[in-house]
Amino acid sequence: MARTLTPSRMPDRMSADRATLDELLDEVLVAHVGLSLDEGPLVIPTGFARDGDRLLFHGSTGSRWLRALAAGADVCVTVTALDGIKVARSGFESGMRYRSACLFGRCTVLVRDEAARALDRFVDRVLPGRAAEMRPSTAKERAATLVLALPITEWSLRSADGFATDPASDVAGETWAGAVPIRTAYGEPEPSPDLRPGIDVPPSVRALTGAPRP
Amino acid sequence: MARTLTPSRMPDRMSADRATLDELLDEVLVAHVGLSLDEGPLVIPTGFARDGDRLLFHGSTGSRWLRALAAGADVCVTVTALDGIKVARSGFESGMRYRSACLFGRCTVLVRDEAARALDRFVDRVLPGRAAEMRPSTAKERAATLVLALPITEWSLRSADGFATDPASDVAGETWAGAVPIRTAYGEPEPSPDLRPGIDVPPSVRALTGAPRP
Repeated sequence: MARTLTPSRMPDRMSADRATLDELLDEVLVAHVGLSLDEGPLVIPTGFARDGDRLLFHGSTGSRWLRALAAGADVCVTVTALDGIKVARSGFESGMRYRSACLFGRCTVLVRDEAARALDRFVDRVLPGRAAEMRPSTAKERAATLVLALPITEWSLRSADGFATDPASDVAGETWAGAVPIRTAYGEPEPSPDLRPGIDVPPSVRALTGAPRP
Repeated sequence: MARTLTPSRMPDRMSADRATLDELLDEVLVAHVGLSLDEGPLVIPTGFARDGDRLLFHGSTGSRWLRALAAGADVCVTVTALDGIKVARSGFESGMRYRSACLFGRCTVLVRDEAARALDRFVDRVLPGRAAEMRPSTAKERAATLVLALPITEWSLRSADGFATDPASDVAGETWAGAVPIRTAYGEPEPSPDLRPGIDVPPSVRALTGAPRP
């Protein structure tokens, strides 16, 4: 649901479309997690994964911000995709093509099987199929990892696409207007320097990058 | 200077290199601005520009988060570039190639000539040379715009590149390891539907996109 805390200007850019939200959350790899500490606000970039109606986060049990979230701190998680530049005929009307979501709430800590499944989900979210290509996580690794879930209940979505709307007086002039799309792409896989000979690029990485199959 | 509030784990990933900070701030187009409101934390994505030893922000005078910053609220501004995926032999060692900066402080409000110059800087930061191709901002536009500056004094920088470090027992196995770079590129300029005939793509946009000159 939309929350009054979120920016309310330009209501045409607000959306309550859950499918659009999920598409954004499943596309963007990094979230910016904001919390209010005694010293002031803190915004941390982190990987995340959507699991149905919740967002999953993870990291070291020694991470201060994760421990604050595990203790029940209020959180704002913002996920943004930058899609292009709107080149208007004035600076005032120029802007970005973007999609952005803010999610609000408090996290819960996942344990045991649920935490183990979440760790596979983090892997497969970035590289679908990769979890099955790797050994399972060890008990020691799981013990060193804090896994949190934020329910997707309070959120807002904003976006801008298309072109800027210039006033008629500017449209009548000689200044160009348009947009420049921004695209993100995967490059060729780079083998690790310690990769032993004869080990091929796995299907998960080939599928992501479109690298030719051997 | 590094601030104790920021994550202090993995000190090898910390850097106090101001030139590296500036390179990141000049490359990434969107910052995530965090502030602590009475209702809880809020993280807003916004365009920004570096102007020497300060970051500039701007937006509508009706924007609640900008007005909170103008009133002197503590702020954390985080700027992140995602450079690739580190594909380790385990989920535990897998991660991202990234660069990220957190800046802390309070903003001041810019007015008159300083605000007008800042508006040109926002334009030229995204599209170098574009401000000179457009009409100047009007008094009405300037009056509707709030321009803020955050001094670059308290900040931290974190990054990860290269490859994951797998334990020897994993390196000895049959699992592939490497990295997949992530690249961002500009697409072909798209003329606005209301562009009048005979107006060419301007030099600023051609320079950005590498579009062929007419």
